Amino acid sequence: MSPVLNFGAGPATLPVPVVEQAAAELGRRSRDGITIMEASHRGLDFSAVAEKAEADLRLLLGVPETHRVLFLQGGATAQFAGVPLNLAPEGASADHVVSGHWSRRAADEAARFCTVNVAADGAGSGYRSVPDPATWRRSPEAAYLAYCANDTIHGVEFHRPPDPGGPPLVADMSSTLLSRPLEVDRFGVIYAGAQKNLGPAGVTVVIVHTELLGRSGRAIPSVLDYRAMADSGSMLNTPPTFAWYVSGLVLAWLIAEGGLEEMESRNRRKQALLYDAIDGSSLYSNAVEPAWRSWMNVPFRLADPDLDAVFRDEASAAGLVGLEGHRSVGGMRASLYNAVPETAVRTLVEFMSDFERRHG
Amino acid sequence: MSPVLNFGAGPATLPVPVVEQAAAELGRRSRDGITIMEASHRGLDFSAVAEKAEADLRLLLGVPETHRVLFLQGGATAQFAGVPLNLAPEGASADHVVSGHWSRRAADEAARFCTVNVAADGAGSGYRSVPDPATWRRSPEAAYLAYCANDTIHGVEFHRPPDPGGPPLVADMSSTLLSRPLEVDRFGVIYAGAQKNLGPAGVTVVIVHTELLGRSGRAIPSVLDYRAMADSGSMLNTPPTFAWYVSGLVLAWLIAEGGLEEMESRNRRKQALLYDAIDGSSLYSNAVEPAWRSWMNVPFRLADPDLDAVFRDEASAAGLVGLEGHRSVGGMRASLYNAVPETAVRTLVEFMSDFERRHG
Repeated sequence: MSPVLNFGAGPATLPVPVVEQAAAELGRRSRDGITIMEASHRGLDFSAVAEKAEADLRLLLGVPETHRVLFLQGGATAQFAGVPLNLAPEGASADHVVSGHWSRRAADEAARFCTVNVAADGAGSGYRSVPDPATWRRSPEAAYLAYCANDTIHGVEFHRPPDPGGPPLVADMSSTLLSRPLEVDRFGVIYAGAQKNLGPAGVTVVIVHTELLGRSGRAIPSVLDYRAMADSGSMLNTPPTFAWYVSGLVLAWLIAEGGLEEMESRNRRKQALLYDAIDGSSLYSNAVEPAWRSWMNVPFRLADPDLDAVFRDEASAAGLVGLEGHRSVGGMRASLYNAVPETAVRTLVEFMSDFERRHG
Repeated sequence: MSPVLNFGAGPATLPVPVVEQAAAELGRRSRDGITIMEASHRGLDFSAVAEKAEADLRLLLGVPETHRVLFLQGGATAQFAGVPLNLAPEGASADHVVSGHWSRRAADEAARFCTVNVAADGAGSGYRSVPDPATWRRSPEAAYLAYCANDTIHGVEFHRPPDPGGPPLVADMSSTLLSRPLEVDRFGVIYAGAQKNLGPAGVTVVIVHTELLGRSGRAIPSVLDYRAMADSGSMLNTPPTFAWYVSGLVLAWLIAEGGLEEMESRNRRKQALLYDAIDGSSLYSNAVEPAWRSWMNVPFRLADPDLDAVFRDEASAAGLVGLEGHRSVGGMRASLYNAVPETAVRTLVEFMSDFERRHG
């Protein structure tokens, strides 16, 4: 079948040149005669891949020397436990801001390992916004303040990081990292599962301030222990070599495309196209307050839910896939990650307009 | 460069048809127009991949209905923590048998989460054998008995599982699973990082008796929680889809090649070829007692260590790579996993014989 325009939330579409390069490389013998997927993680070929991926990520995000970059496994879900285990001493508390499905999951998981104070919860507004930071009920002794920079399901995004005051700021950036420039030095921990903007499923980036390594003094499974992983160059155990390699291709592609300022320009245009189309229509709607609307994941509903299946079927026939909303909320969702080109969003908007003319 | 014969310990060589198929598939659009690496783990295409991989693994190993099969992340190192967290209630003890580097690592990690009783330790013999099970100092209340079926570094293998008596038997089978038939019903937990006999790095198989799900009652990071992962079909979080897919290709290849009885025949011949060559030489030696010699990983030393680098250089020039011993023990090591053909072992043995004539 011919290529489609894939708006799936993740594992998500990858840049076309990355997929082509990975496919070619997978069958190619490198200078030591081994394909990349069969190479030892301690060999020269993979060491070069690993080092370049970290260097490119540091270059793109301007990661300061104060922060370590780890390539781990287990996705954001592993870090939902990893953060309290690394940062909160036994019996300590932590502040969590809930702005959608994933920050709720993070708070629930953290509560297994420390006392969680939900400082604010967008559930009261149906996750259409996040309470004003001035109203957050912060705990004075919190080991950290955690939030989700972009909720993939509810489509709620922080366009500026909150000010944590004293404790370190922890951000789940799975679905927004690399979508625009970031001031990394404002964060204690940033983590992101790769399968949205960074690469294929199976590798997770953690960026952590060196001051936080070993902070909790707790017994931590080694694969979640930031200090042990930093000390071993993320090779305490065998890393997910091929996923790390493909992430490196994505990072090199981002640099070649002009870096994160360029991504910001493109992503700003892409989201504006789609939200303008939704707001200008009487069939489609998005309930999130404009200041909190996600650039990366745009959920929308049809005025007549009976049309949902028709919409998806016709979209699919037109080569537009991955548009179903998350099963927990229903409706539609278009994910506009870096690898989704502006032309794809234009095609989607035209399809939506045409669909509304015929069914609206 | 042309293909080489790769004796690396892992990430290891994969069957040639598997690499070719994965490379072709990586660039191919499936019936929904998306490549496998970009497909949602909840889509029809990947669901079919995931289900077939489990079905094929169950068929090959004869996994009984009493046992669940999980596809996780983090390798054996993650399970070094996962086993005590899932099986040992707070304050409980566990019996560990140490037969080499990896079972030592497993015992050390478990000691963070429970009281570890080292029931036997092969260190006294320099890991040339494992103490007779009749002499093991078992603890009466142990939550489980853990051992490593094959130590990849010291080349020590249990050719029959020990009898655990009362508690469940736990086996790290990372480097030996699928090398021959197995009586899965004798085990409480079997785990294996894929990157030896099963697939690429980044996916880990856990086979666990349903009676052990939720056994410990402890707070466990969800990604290590056998019950949560079993309840969600290993999709509590986004799984490592491409690594899972390639593992599925390896499992299908194993079935097509004749299954585990056939693998046992091949592997028996391969190891006999190499150990016979070592024992018949005055240059090479392997110190492990014959009853404990690994079929999968054959460490050997040269009588003159000054020849080590010459051996590796000449081997590499002859297209034989991955022969360096683990950095913790030095010397040489040849890994003879399923994907290493008998012809490769013959080529290695001929090279060794020729090398001995010239340098011995």
